[in-house]
Amino acid sequence: MELQVTQENFTRALSNVSRVATNKAQLPILENILLRTDNNRLLVAATNLEVASSNYVGAKVVREGSITIPARLITEFVSNLPKEQINLKVENDHLKITCGHYSSIINGMVADEFPELPVIDKKTSIKYIVTTEDFKKAVSQTMVTSSSDSTRPVLTGVYWHSFEGKLYLAATDGYRLSEKYLIDTKTELSAIIPASTLQEVLRTINDEVEEIELLFNDTQVHFKLNETEITSRLIDGIFPDYRQLIPKTSETEIILKKDDFVRITKIASLFARESGGSVTISAVSETKTLSIHSIASELGENTSEAEAETITQDGTVTLNSRYLNEALSVLDGDRVTFRFSGKLSPCVLTDGSKSANYKHIIMPLKS
Amino acid sequence: MELQVTQENFTRALSNVSRVATNKAQLPILENILLRTDNNRLLVAATNLEVASSNYVGAKVVREGSITIPARLITEFVSNLPKEQINLKVENDHLKITCGHYSSIINGMVADEFPELPVIDKKTSIKYIVTTEDFKKAVSQTMVTSSSDSTRPVLTGVYWHSFEGKLYLAATDGYRLSEKYLIDTKTELSAIIPASTLQEVLRTINDEVEEIELLFNDTQVHFKLNETEITSRLIDGIFPDYRQLIPKTSETEIILKKDDFVRITKIASLFARESGGSVTISAVSETKTLSIHSIASELGENTSEAEAETITQDGTVTLNSRYLNEALSVLDGDRVTFRFSGKLSPCVLTDGSKSANYKHIIMPLKS
Repeated sequence: MELQVTQENFTRALSNVSRVATNKAQLPILENILLRTDNNRLLVAATNLEVASSNYVGAKVVREGSITIPARLITEFVSNLPKEQINLKVENDHLKITCGHYSSIINGMVADEFPELPVIDKKTSIKYIVTTEDFKKAVSQTMVTSSSDSTRPVLTGVYWHSFEGKLYLAATDGYRLSEKYLIDTKTELSAIIPASTLQEVLRTINDEVEEIELLFNDTQVHFKLNETEITSRLIDGIFPDYRQLIPKTSETEIILKKDDFVRITKIASLFARESGGSVTISAVSETKTLSIHSIASELGENTSEAEAETITQDGTVTLNSRYLNEALSVLDGDRVTFRFSGKLSPCVLTDGSKSANYKHIIMPLKS
Repeated sequence: MELQVTQENFTRALSNVSRVATNKAQLPILENILLRTDNNRLLVAATNLEVASSNYVGAKVVREGSITIPARLITEFVSNLPKEQINLKVENDHLKITCGHYSSIINGMVADEFPELPVIDKKTSIKYIVTTEDFKKAVSQTMVTSSSDSTRPVLTGVYWHSFEGKLYLAATDGYRLSEKYLIDTKTELSAIIPASTLQEVLRTINDEVEEIELLFNDTQVHFKLNETEITSRLIDGIFPDYRQLIPKTSETEIILKKDDFVRITKIASLFARESGGSVTISAVSETKTLSIHSIASELGENTSEAEAETITQDGTVTLNSRYLNEALSVLDGDRVTFRFSGKLSPCVLTDGSKSANYKHIIMPLKS
């Protein structure tokens, strides 16, 4: 292999894919990045066997070929080179890299040992195109309630599925739940994408990516973000029938400014550290006051109040303040609707509007 | 105790002093901040028995008194309050804090148990006033070569001392050494300030601090930065007679652009990780080329070159690339003078000027 690429293109490709490279003791080649010529392009790719990321770079190919190279070293080395032409030349298992005054030899492994990159058949797949803005918002709003407990794999993903002509994303860790309407759809979909894959896609998005193409088949999902393509396995299993858990109505409904709710929650949570984050929320309709009370048995206690726009009925509920903080951090808009029915049934948070397309549910703590 | 302070003043005082509070199991009160009225002011102070930091805040004092309060909780709580008047009221061992819609009770400890804050006699002390800019520069340039090895305490500090009418700072960890001329002086000084104390002073400096007043006595140093005062013990012991270690002349002297030297050092260091940072520097006078070569036995090797303005004589020396990186990061100016005499005697880095008031010495590695 012998070719020239620009430093800008090569460093962008390397930084896009190198995060996926991993050090698994049983398969050292996964620490490497695959470089392979493809007509007038250079393929730059990495895989951890669950997720594969690849990127094509325009290249002046002198001699076809391939090699794999330690991901971290080449990524850091190339990113520090000046913005000039880079010459890559494979000799035996070594890659010789020269650029201006810089010259390196990196020891690689032959590409034959590199795992085959997954391919997805475009014709038989379900395809969606989503704007980057909608994708980022929907993924961030749902991923936050996914679980990190690998003993229940289906909960470690985000459930992309169609329901009555609409495509929804949903995730739950058993303590809280979120659901987001994304777009209308005529196709049937039911796929659980690992949260770690979605995280990788979010990291790969840059300002130049305006839309994201998604392809689903029965076992895989494929994301195309301009020149970067990410393919991931789906999580096998049945997602819980979560819709029945979302209360349609609640006894107490409160509408208030989001900033006010954020501030009193944050202050209350400082005092809730010693008690596992437990805070008690009380709504008083007569004075339109929402108050949060927290007790740190050894350190003291706190009461913070905010004025609400509406409180339909008095009520009290005890929540984990971390869950409340996280819910408020992903909610849209300036106002929040917060509703609950006494101490036992789930609390629902939505933005202040009637047409809220995002629901965030938190189970109360026993108090 | 009962008083009012503004949130802005109180939160600034707390954030200035609270870093010093520490959790030492044998003396739990050191986790607390001392609050004590003093005429129309509130004293906010913390100590870890080595360093004490205090700050006065203007206050409307209703009733004199004092208390100590957990540092982290009160600092975070007050910083999250709105910018309004804060009421503080001590009842038994509790501090009641109210501010607008926020009301907290924090459990404290009586101030009698708090260690006495150190005082320094201004009349019998040696006094210097230094601009904040000069102080920051001199401390950063020397602290970098101090040791973190507590078995040789004198090397964990920066040696402030007078020599032939000038005040110098010096520090060495046994592998490298730095010396900075600060100001002219007529008084005799010889004091080793712990690097951790200087770090704390640097952290406390904000944009409003234009000059720093230092007072030295035999065992203590006192820093005054506007309303914040920091007092620290000095390190007991004799600093090594380092001057004899600085070579007056060198066989090879190289002058080059600092950016070029930084870039080739950084790239070489990527390949030097596996070999403990070892890089070999070669200077060739005929081509005016400075090159750095590094070998990562399993990963590969690298050669990076830069053009020098001057090279007096060919030479080669092997250094730790981390030390070279750190030296370059604290050197002033656009150009660097780098000189050495073969593989064994110390290397000297200064800025490109003749009147360099900062010297940075690195011992070579055996190669």
